[in-house]
Amino acid sequence: MSLIRSAEDVGRWDAEVDVLVVGLGCAGASAAWTAADAGAETLVLERAGGGGGTSAMSGGVVYLGGGTALQRACGFEDTPEEMLKYLMASCGPAPDEAKLRLYCEASAEHYDWLVARGVPFKPVFHYGCSGEPPNDDGLVWSGSERAWPYCEIAVPAPRGHVPQMDHQAGPLLMQKLIAAVEESAARVATDHRCTALVQRSGGAVLGAVARTSEGERTIRARSAVILTTGGFIQDDAMIAAHAPRVRQCSFRVGAEGDDGSGIRLGTAAGGATVHMNAVSISLPATQPWGLKRGLLINAQGQRFINEDAYYGRLGEYALLRHGGRAWLVVDDAVFEKPDYPREVAAVGDTPAELERELGLPGDSLTATLELYNRHAERGADPVFHKATDYVQPLVKPPFGAFDCTTEGSLYAAFTLGGLASDSHGRVLDPEGRPIPGLFAAGRATSGLSVGGYSSGLSLGDGSFFGRRAGACAAAGPSA
Amino acid sequence: MSLIRSAEDVGRWDAEVDVLVVGLGCAGASAAWTAADAGAETLVLERAGGGGGTSAMSGGVVYLGGGTALQRACGFEDTPEEMLKYLMASCGPAPDEAKLRLYCEASAEHYDWLVARGVPFKPVFHYGCSGEPPNDDGLVWSGSERAWPYCEIAVPAPRGHVPQMDHQAGPLLMQKLIAAVEESAARVATDHRCTALVQRSGGAVLGAVARTSEGERTIRARSAVILTTGGFIQDDAMIAAHAPRVRQCSFRVGAEGDDGSGIRLGTAAGGATVHMNAVSISLPATQPWGLKRGLLINAQGQRFINEDAYYGRLGEYALLRHGGRAWLVVDDAVFEKPDYPREVAAVGDTPAELERELGLPGDSLTATLELYNRHAERGADPVFHKATDYVQPLVKPPFGAFDCTTEGSLYAAFTLGGLASDSHGRVLDPEGRPIPGLFAAGRATSGLSVGGYSSGLSLGDGSFFGRRAGACAAAGPSA
Repeated sequence: MSLIRSAEDVGRWDAEVDVLVVGLGCAGASAAWTAADAGAETLVLERAGGGGGTSAMSGGVVYLGGGTALQRACGFEDTPEEMLKYLMASCGPAPDEAKLRLYCEASAEHYDWLVARGVPFKPVFHYGCSGEPPNDDGLVWSGSERAWPYCEIAVPAPRGHVPQMDHQAGPLLMQKLIAAVEESAARVATDHRCTALVQRSGGAVLGAVARTSEGERTIRARSAVILTTGGFIQDDAMIAAHAPRVRQCSFRVGAEGDDGSGIRLGTAAGGATVHMNAVSISLPATQPWGLKRGLLINAQGQRFINEDAYYGRLGEYALLRHGGRAWLVVDDAVFEKPDYPREVAAVGDTPAELERELGLPGDSLTATLELYNRHAERGADPVFHKATDYVQPLVKPPFGAFDCTTEGSLYAAFTLGGLASDSHGRVLDPEGRPIPGLFAAGRATSGLSVGGYSSGLSLGDGSFFGRRAGACAAAGPSA
Repeated sequence: MSLIRSAEDVGRWDAEVDVLVVGLGCAGASAAWTAADAGAETLVLERAGGGGGTSAMSGGVVYLGGGTALQRACGFEDTPEEMLKYLMASCGPAPDEAKLRLYCEASAEHYDWLVARGVPFKPVFHYGCSGEPPNDDGLVWSGSERAWPYCEIAVPAPRGHVPQMDHQAGPLLMQKLIAAVEESAARVATDHRCTALVQRSGGAVLGAVARTSEGERTIRARSAVILTTGGFIQDDAMIAAHAPRVRQCSFRVGAEGDDGSGIRLGTAAGGATVHMNAVSISLPATQPWGLKRGLLINAQGQRFINEDAYYGRLGEYALLRHGGRAWLVVDDAVFEKPDYPREVAAVGDTPAELERELGLPGDSLTATLELYNRHAERGADPVFHKATDYVQPLVKPPFGAFDCTTEGSLYAAFTLGGLASDSHGRVLDPEGRPIPGLFAAGRATSGLSVGGYSSGLSLGDGSFFGRRAGACAAAGPSA
């Protein structure tokens, strides 16, 4: 079935609105609320029985900064400039500077917007964990801000803003955003799967076709269609075509709807895709933080990263650069129970014995430990620049290695690439021109991170650029 | 200007043929000859003043095997099965097995086809260099067949087939293929730049628009248009969007026409793209082969690959996994003048002095050398599995390091991603359905390699799948 219907083929419209939003995750909810708030007649199509999508399955961390009210309440200083420096350095090899700058400058305001939508944040900073806190505290470290090389590039500040809910705050975030949509003039049609866009030949997107239990409905969008359908981690063919190494990961982070449907609709309408290989890979191997004192090694018995880097960076390096073959080596002094269940792959009374048990090349781990310990004795790690807090010689037997391989360990993956869009959320064709009547936001687009990840960037850019798409779409077809 | 014209907008056709080929590199020439040979009225549009494109700028190596006449004449045994095993293992994380299988099974026949087109190959195997030989010998190693891990996966055979011409055989290859086209019934129109495809709304491609010095021409293609326009290494925007790390490379391998124009045309017509991040990166650091006895190290003073791997694999690892920060460490016994000019970055009477001169972390290179030498003394490299021929302790001062950084060294890059196509060269939409009337071959498509590279694969799959596209296109619009 074709993803594009011509205007002529659509005999009549079953419904007509100004702005049609496809998908009710955080980007869709933010877009719909904003469009309705601007006075546009707005309808959201959600293929599932209810909204939420992957956002509601997430930990709910939103990456915000530049001096938000929450950061200030917790006693942290931050500026848009330092936030921008960090994100420009950490978001992969070619991030979109215009989008990043806008996001950093408006980040404090975006926090206020979330609060005004009813999302609660407890003004308590949670020390001692990365990403989602184990309780309802509001602010955490959710990136590699304090780790080398970023600590030398930008003044660190914690920027993980977490709605006030124990353990996993994504459901609360989406409950509040969906409630805001329901209180607005926007309408939501669940169990409506968008199967095609209606497009004037080579031109403007005019509406969409939705499949429902009662048959097909055609919906005219006088101003625009906004695709907020999520990424493509659940689509095997797209993963094979664009990010095949992800197939090694044990856990694909995404609702069933993250099957790339919106990306395919957008490309069928002439949209370009960018950074389709970009992925977030989390390897939560160093929680509690005491485990950062261990050494993360590869199949050659070598270290390959400062172990205090954020787990998103650890996962990226372990999977994409070292084939998902990694172990966290500890001694008896450093050993503690990991927060994320993790097998002990091997134990040995000496480094050499541990090395043999792991099947590593002879003397390889031994040499790595010797070099590390020599510098660690004076509290330094000149090779990988781990922060001194986590540098101590590993000398107390027995020695052990936690399994951090893709076979035996949690690698949590989702996609970051998608439709090309500008800072208003307009979908761009391969020549960089907006496709009239077509917007997108969230993981259906390539967002702030095009490689390196910090937690909260997807809920952050999804909701932020969702708002911008909603506002621009509501301004009418000439916008 | 739109890349797609509707059939209605094209008032009249200035010319009409069966098969219209866009671009006269090796894929275009092979497609055009084959289509004409099958009886189709065939026209090739070439935007430059003459054909050849990137193929004519290349070394002319064609990756072929499975027991070609040339392999047999040089005394090498090979089978399609062993060739397939090697390519499946070495062509990146998710190669197209159907295409690879077909290529391996028909490879010996494809060699004969090239010979029948007048391409000469001297039946002499050239030992001692990888890729392009320095003389007119016909057969070389052009991949990592004998290097770990591939030597354990498939029986190695040299598969680099090089037309008989000193130093650089690409011009000869293209001279012969273009002569074959000129002798065929196909016609060639140079200085014709294809600027748009003509397409029925949401349907079949009907022809193309070409810009010439005398204005615009519209050309009807009764059967099909075949896009053979090359890759996109020369397009800065596409490189930034899909393969940004390549921007570090000092040399972009590609004619001016490798600007992605055909990929953009194909996507505008509804074609999907795949593996757009895939690139070939050559770092010819170990020629002459004696230099394979050196140690390639990264900015942490660590080895990261068996140094006897093919230079395409060395470059991929050095750039994509180690940021383009690499040096080849030698001692006085191993030192020799590199074939590719290369600065000596530092010299030292001891490993520690060399380490300091290179600005490496204290004791890092020293530890790497100690570990390597300990095993090398008994002729082994259990850490990276370099072949024993190249394993000898590095102990004779002075020690030196050749500059293999992106700043100081040749990194030759081109793109491997492109339009999705099936084994007949039909361009596929995001749902995997052929777009009627549209074919593609060569680097405008994603080909045999979707990551790891062996020299000759692009001339190989370009000419091979060019032939298949030409044959299928010539069979008519219902094919």
